[in-house]
Amino acid sequence: MASAINPRLPRIWHGGDYNPEQWPRATWDEDMRLMQESRFNVATVGVFSWVSLQPAEDRFTFEWLDEVLAKLTAADRFVCLATPTMAHPAWMSQAYPDVLRADDTGVRRHHGRRTNYCPNSPSYRRFGRAIAERLAQRYATYPGLVAWHVSNEYGGACYCDTCADKFRQWLHAKYASLDELNQRWWTAFWSHTFTDWSQIEPPYNNGETLTAALTLDYRRFQTQSMLECFKLERDAIRQHSHDVPITTNMMGAYVHLDYRAWAPELDVISWDCYPWPSADPGDIAFLHDLHRSLKDGQPFMLMEQTPSSQNWQPVNALKRPGVLRLWSYLAVAHGADTVMYFQWRRGRGGCEKFHGAVVEHGRSPSTRVFNEVSELGAELERLGEATLGARTPARVAVLFDWENWWAIDSAVGPINNKEYVATVRRWYRALWRRNVGVDVVFSDSDLSRYDVVIAPMLHMVKEGVADRIQALLERGGTFVTTVFSGVVDETDLAFEGYPGPLRPLLGVRIEEVDALYDGQTNHILMSDASATYACSRLCEIVHAETADVLATYAEDFYAGTPVLTRNRFGAGQAYYVATDPEDAFLDAFVDKLLAHHGIAAPLEAPPGVEVAVRERDGQRVLFVLNHTAETTHVPLPADPSYRDLLRGMAVTGKLSLAPRDVRILLLSS
Amino acid sequence: MASAINPRLPRIWHGGDYNPEQWPRATWDEDMRLMQESRFNVATVGVFSWVSLQPAEDRFTFEWLDEVLAKLTAADRFVCLATPTMAHPAWMSQAYPDVLRADDTGVRRHHGRRTNYCPNSPSYRRFGRAIAERLAQRYATYPGLVAWHVSNEYGGACYCDTCADKFRQWLHAKYASLDELNQRWWTAFWSHTFTDWSQIEPPYNNGETLTAALTLDYRRFQTQSMLECFKLERDAIRQHSHDVPITTNMMGAYVHLDYRAWAPELDVISWDCYPWPSADPGDIAFLHDLHRSLKDGQPFMLMEQTPSSQNWQPVNALKRPGVLRLWSYLAVAHGADTVMYFQWRRGRGGCEKFHGAVVEHGRSPSTRVFNEVSELGAELERLGEATLGARTPARVAVLFDWENWWAIDSAVGPINNKEYVATVRRWYRALWRRNVGVDVVFSDSDLSRYDVVIAPMLHMVKEGVADRIQALLERGGTFVTTVFSGVVDETDLAFEGYPGPLRPLLGVRIEEVDALYDGQTNHILMSDASATYACSRLCEIVHAETADVLATYAEDFYAGTPVLTRNRFGAGQAYYVATDPEDAFLDAFVDKLLAHHGIAAPLEAPPGVEVAVRERDGQRVLFVLNHTAETTHVPLPADPSYRDLLRGMAVTGKLSLAPRDVRILLLSS
Amino acid sequence: MASAINPRLPRIWHGGDYNPEQWPRATWDEDMRLMQESRFNVATVGVFSWVSLQPAEDRFTFEWLDEVLAKLTAADRFVCLATPTMAHPAWMSQAYPDVLRADDTGVRRHHGRRTNYCPNSPSYRRFGRAIAERLAQRYATYPGLVAWHVSNEYGGACYCDTCADKFRQWLHAKYASLDELNQRWWTAFWSHTFTDWSQIEPPYNNGETLTAALTLDYRRFQTQSMLECFKLERDAIRQHSHDVPITTNMMGAYVHLDYRAWAPELDVISWDCYPWPSADPGDIAFLHDLHRSLKDGQPFMLMEQTPSSQNWQPVNALKRPGVLRLWSYLAVAHGADTVMYFQWRRGRGGCEKFHGAVVEHGRSPSTRVFNEVSELGAELERLGEATLGARTPARVAVLFDWENWWAIDSAVGPINNKEYVATVRRWYRALWRRNVGVDVVFSDSDLSRYDVVIAPMLHMVKEGVADRIQALLERGGTFVTTVFSGVVDETDLAFEGYPGPLRPLLGVRIEEVDALYDGQTNHILMSDASATYACSRLCEIVHAETADVLATYAEDFYAGTPVLTRNRFGAGQAYYVATDPEDAFLDAFVDKLLAHHGIAAPLEAPPGVEVAVRERDGQRVLFVLNHTAETTHVPLPADPSYRDLLRGMAVTGKLSLAPRDVRILLLSS
Repeated sequence: MASAINPRLPRIWHGGDYNPEQWPRATWDEDMRLMQESRFNVATVGVFSWVSLQPAEDRFTFEWLDEVLAKLTAADRFVCLATPTMAHPAWMSQAYPDVLRADDTGVRRHHGRRTNYCPNSPSYRRFGRAIAERLAQRYATYPGLVAWHVSNEYGGACYCDTCADKFRQWLHAKYASLDELNQRWWTAFWSHTFTDWSQIEPPYNNGETLTAALTLDYRRFQTQSMLECFKLERDAIRQHSHDVPITTNMMGAYVHLDYRAWAPELDVISWDCYPWPSADPGDIAFLHDLHRSLKDGQPFMLMEQTPSSQNWQPVNALKRPGVLRLWSYLAVAHGADTVMYFQWRRGRGGCEKFHGAVVEHGRSPSTRVFNEVSELGAELERLGEATLGARTPARVAVLFDWENWWAIDSAVGPINNKEYVATVRRWYRALWRRNVGVDVVFSDSDLSRYDVVIAPMLHMVKEGVADRIQALLERGGTFVTTVFSGVVDETDLAFEGYPGPLRPLLGVRIEEVDALYDGQTNHILMSDASATYACSRLCEIVHAETADVLATYAEDFYAGTPVLTRNRFGAGQAYYVATDPEDAFLDAFVDKLLAHHGIAAPLEAPPGVEVAVRERDGQRVLFVLNHTAETTHVPLPADPSYRDLLRGMAVTGKLSLAPRDVRILLLSS
Repeated sequence: MASAINPRLPRIWHGGDYNPEQWPRATWDEDMRLMQESRFNVATVGVFSWVSLQPAEDRFTFEWLDEVLAKLTAADRFVCLATPTMAHPAWMSQAYPDVLRADDTGVRRHHGRRTNYCPNSPSYRRFGRAIAERLAQRYATYPGLVAWHVSNEYGGACYCDTCADKFRQWLHAKYASLDELNQRWWTAFWSHTFTDWSQIEPPYNNGETLTAALTLDYRRFQTQSMLECFKLERDAIRQHSHDVPITTNMMGAYVHLDYRAWAPELDVISWDCYPWPSADPGDIAFLHDLHRSLKDGQPFMLMEQTPSSQNWQPVNALKRPGVLRLWSYLAVAHGADTVMYFQWRRGRGGCEKFHGAVVEHGRSPSTRVFNEVSELGAELERLGEATLGARTPARVAVLFDWENWWAIDSAVGPINNKEYVATVRRWYRALWRRNVGVDVVFSDSDLSRYDVVIAPMLHMVKEGVADRIQALLERGGTFVTTVFSGVVDETDLAFEGYPGPLRPLLGVRIEEVDALYDGQTNHILMSDASATYACSRLCEIVHAETADVLATYAEDFYAGTPVLTRNRFGAGQAYYVATDPEDAFLDAFVDKLLAHHGIAAPLEAPPGVEVAVRERDGQRVLFVLNHTAETTHVPLPADPSYRDLLRGMAVTGKLSLAPRDVRILLLSS
Repeated sequence: MASAINPRLPRIWHGGDYNPEQWPRATWDEDMRLMQESRFNVATVGVFSWVSLQPAEDRFTFEWLDEVLAKLTAADRFVCLATPTMAHPAWMSQAYPDVLRADDTGVRRHHGRRTNYCPNSPSYRRFGRAIAERLAQRYATYPGLVAWHVSNEYGGACYCDTCADKFRQWLHAKYASLDELNQRWWTAFWSHTFTDWSQIEPPYNNGETLTAALTLDYRRFQTQSMLECFKLERDAIRQHSHDVPITTNMMGAYVHLDYRAWAPELDVISWDCYPWPSADPGDIAFLHDLHRSLKDGQPFMLMEQTPSSQNWQPVNALKRPGVLRLWSYLAVAHGADTVMYFQWRRGRGGCEKFHGAVVEHGRSPSTRVFNEVSELGAELERLGEATLGARTPARVAVLFDWENWWAIDSAVGPINNKEYVATVRRWYRALWRRNVGVDVVFSDSDLSRYDVVIAPMLHMVKEGVADRIQALLERGGTFVTTVFSGVVDETDLAFEGYPGPLRPLLGVRIEEVDALYDGQTNHILMSDASATYACSRLCEIVHAETADVLATYAEDFYAGTPVLTRNRFGAGQAYYVATDPEDAFLDAFVDKLLAHHGIAAPLEAPPGVEVAVRERDGQRVLFVLNHTAETTHVPLPADPSYRDLLRGMAVTGKLSLAPRDVRILLLSS
């Protein structure tokens, strides 16, 4: 039951952003030829075309787009058609200033850059909906259309008066009474009690920056405001285009938008993957798993990646030969059903003229990058639909939650350097290094399919979370959480005693939290004397109530007190890690959890070699990725038998992988 | 002649901030019980209660406060009653926008945070005075009232149009004529001459930032504007409450407010002591001595300190066990007659929910912190009134002056890194390490009681200062000043020749000042060949006129020229230290000064053990504080005899102090 | 054919800024006496005198200036008369707010500091022109007048509405049609197409910051706007004063102003030389050569330098003894015909009261600084007119271009740390270390007099540049350019293939550019195995087309590919250096180029000893400058013979130079 994103194109899509409106017509024909040569088969068109499609409020110029789409069809290419609403035209800002975003002091910005609109602007919403609808009306029946791409990289926040007004309405709807809001926000502190709704303002940087509950609600309000923009366009499109999937491209662990709240509104998740050139592949894998998990495992689109270098980082190193292919398959291994680029052709001007592209300024197809893209395109054709729609089996989950992130970041104390995302990533990577499938879960996720759930720094414990964890434990599952957990509820009110609703599950009580200066450490002394590990940043002083003490602090006035505890609850076990341990601890700890549940890697592989699995219709496909710059070997068990999908042949014995090489194996047991 | 702050409560007050308005009534009874258990006997109430007491312009709700005070009385607790004017209600900002402060470009801020009012706002002053008066009318006769706490931590600065107008009036009153102002401010420079009073503006960050005399006067104006706010409230209270002392809490070496100018208006000094967790206790001692010296030795209130951790620093380490007690007695040793906390109970929300409190979120009294507080409370009860009103004997003084600080900081050149306060602290600490009593003096202080006055970086020499130093010298005293001294007068006009009016006293002329890069040093070569010391940052090229040269530079083109000089003047000696020397120099130099005047520590103690003295009615009380984490021993001379006030027994021979332990000894000679 | 700046004073001018309006009349007579004593013979008067000359719109007070000029004449001093328009009076800002500059968000600043006017303000221009004209009318015939100094240190940029309007007009005039502008600026990118001229705004920091072509044009517009201010005043002066040279003081490699575009409008270049105390003298030499080259070799005025220390740097070290003289002759050696200071007398107030001056606050003439100034003054008198008007012979040129700088800095990618100016300086210093004469050239310079032209990072290749380089090559010259060259045209549009128009000349094609993290290196492996050099920051991947490969990369995936190429073109050679090499490479490479062209130093000198040449009327004067703190020796060849101009005697054999000493030798062959 292979399920392509769109059955019109049942293979891994290979393509990316294409901006023909920046170029003379003569270039378009060259584009078609080169796209064919490089197996670039899906062009994302229209992302920044608003002024080209609507040069004045009442004038529309779709003719060039008609022509481009016709050429793409003629060249046997497909189209991911974007609405152009990320970057609105200057004429709009000029005629309808409410369109412009205001900065965090409430001052309206000048026109410029992009994502510079107010998501609550009536004018923006009216124009945005209208252009989306016109595109849908005109192109719904375009034969090459495989997906709708609404706007682009939603993000940021606006603090204009329109937003302020709507925020007050939003709060009124949420809290019903001012008393309730004042109580939930604990406004009696510092005499912040509101006596009229009209007194409430956004968390202006030169205003109320220190009421965390206000900041939290404003973040919720802004992510919802932008989601409303998306939905307006999506609904307008859907009226005319009934069966083409609609998406918008996300940006990983992006602080401003709670993508989990967005996911149900998208037909398919898509995202733009721009790691640092020196990134750990485990961190990239985490982000792929995050996006796959947004819709609970549904395969996603890799909408953008650079074929060579980025341009907006402090240092934009080139992707080394083979890395484009390696990281493309990394995405596929973790659930991507597309491999797409930003962008097809480098513009001669604009701030991204030094961003990598398939076709460089020199227009030559005989470049390293064009060749790597073309070879990958050809290879993806050979792979065909073998992996399409396949799911990632995972018995382990790591919990990540945007609102928890916001709450942790807005907490004043006990340390500035809170590192929520980095901490989640470190726990994730310990699992990733073991080559076991990992899902990301959220506070609202169903945990019933997991054996192990690790929730680093679960500071905010929302309604229902403790119940779901309890169910996990009762049926024999393992739950882990760490320092600074169980502290606040959904409006950032502290529980009267930590870890709040997790206390009966974890069997511990937290009395104090100590903060360590950079470079300062304490140590974790395992009670079985098996090892000692460094820990840093935060050290909680814990009382074991019903929990067993598995390790204690080695130093300072709390030496000998618990730092690692295990509470047997139901048939399961709940661990508390009261500090931020070094990686060696994570590795050893994770090994024990996996062993306890009999969770093992699909293949034994040397360090730096990743093995990931996708499954469909009872078939398993293994991705073996050599992230190292060395040739390496992976022994294959005699049974089951493996078929190399790219080479089209059976493999046995020992798999040899060249530096940065990838193998894709179909298991037949 | 013991003199308690308020004879109603003749003991060391033990208490702190209490915010019942944030909690349901049920909590109040728990509060009373726990306060009794912890000997928390003075509750500071009302600091942030404005909106709770006055939820609308014409509506007042004192009933809850009546009830709280009644409960406190019933529980035998006392009250430090605060006016709530630090944090004004949102309704006030909304109805009277002139209440809001403007930032340093003159742009009005949004409502939020606290201390967000304009000190010259007519509305703010009207409302502030009124609420203070109403509180005084209602509670003047409240039996548990022991002190009035006006507003809270005055600070910052406003740059609104109201302030600008009043500033011009203030300048007109000060200088009478524009010609005088132009001359004093040296405005002919860069064509800055004002031809009409209306042209003068505050030193806006996007305006005139480089006229130091303007900046200086604006600082004076702002500190006085806030002092006027204090006086308005104080006078309103005094009309109804005649014998309860009135204070406001200060914040140490806080740049915005010239506390010396404030001191005469307060009945008793109080301050909030929030050192870095890793602070040198000598720096804390300096701040206690500074506050004690603001009213020339009168004991002060330690109004706030955290029982455990702060929350607003980058890293908020816990106070280690014993540190709360140690640092509390450090305050008492230096003149405090109260030991008070912020705060009684942690709020569940608000930006200080991670600030330490006596009662934590867990509400439990069986915490380390609650226990330490309770034990200290019990101990303070045992100490009784033995130290109350006692004075600190000091023959040595260190000069610190806010206006001097402002002048140094606004000087452009010769180095960015001026470090006035750090330099004062370093000199202070050299004396503190010798366990001799030190007063802080100011430019206007009477110096007649001192043998030694050290004035590091006395850049601004005000009217009368040279005369007072001359008198000190004539009667045999010692005066020391250091690099960058004697440069400007009170309006920041440079003297024509440095060190200005100090030149005849010091017997030197400064020709040039060299600035050294970070990490660069010169050396101080003692003329008696006794030692060589590193020096850094600033090196002046000095000509000894009547002074003797005690040391010369070892390096660079000014090698061999004077760096330390001594001028015999009258019966005294005036030293000039033309650079910023390392601590070893300060230690050796200070030793010689003390030896010369026969000033010795009250006890010989090993490094890290402080000995401080308070005297009253001919009785001396010694505080012996072990700041180390080691057990240590202090030999006691056979005569006089010592009585341990906490243990209630005589001690002889050798005093053994556990890590961070404190002994309080009464001398009977 | 000696040509003095003004024949009235045919010697090296020795003087500087004099601000008598800050001082009482009594001081003026002291000034005259001390000026005579120190041979301070040219006083720059009036720089900041606007409010002193025009205290109200309709009131003028020239009398004090009359008196000062009379005193100067009586004292036999000369005058460089300044217009006071850098710092406008407060009354003007108050009455005509359009005078005030707006910050980069378009918000008008408050009055204050200096250079705080809008260069396009009609009021500013009207008042500026008028005061210049009045000064010219009154003082054109003043006998001591030797130069006009228009305003002072033009700089910065304004973003007010007046500027925005004029910018749109300027663009309209430049591009004629919006289509042309949209195409050149590549505005289709991110939907930035303008559909009406009125939509274009300055590159506000809270607006359009990312359209590099807009930023570039705004820089051009602002430099031209300020130049128009200069020309307005200059023309007003010229109407009344026909033969006195007119200048304004420049500031080296100052980013805001394209001084090359200014140079034709000035009669003589003048500049203010304020190196870091720790500056490499080669960097100072570069700036002197830059200013000399602005008018293609015409000698320039050193208008300002500090006699001792600056005050606005983080650390303002003193000039060591001898450095003032050494650096003064460094200027003369590179083309200066004046040695002037900021300033004569330190003001007692104002933000420059700690800036070095000839007369310090102590008013004493018996200071080290006053003595050094006086001795230098006397020596310059002895030197007489020997060097006046003499030219610097140079067969080598380094290309520096402001618009190229702006383009490089506004490029987003491939690395943040672009270092254009630092790179130019590094190449310059390699030549300077060889003691060969070097001119700075610009994109519009005639290259016909040079054998070698080095153009580091010639990113923007303007019209005609490739032609001029081609001509250089055809006649046997050598051209060198380096990484990131040949990328964009004058409106920042990327060429379709790098290095654009330089490709046929260099015989290479650039495929990719790799960026290296700080601390990361690759290596340059010389093909003749002569050496290996480190390189860093940027490494381009180059294809040699017609060029020979002289060196290859040693590491990474592009190991073995070209990093240094030489293309034989016409009779010449064009080198491409595809990376940023260490100094050792530059030294070796430059040696080969010089050897090829038989270009040698005028004398063999040890490291740290500079030898520079000026020529006039067939006579050569050699400046030998010992930049080290050691005594050093320079052997003189037997022929020609040398005459020491300062000592007035012949020298032969070996020249001995004390630390920081200078010799000036006249060659007679």
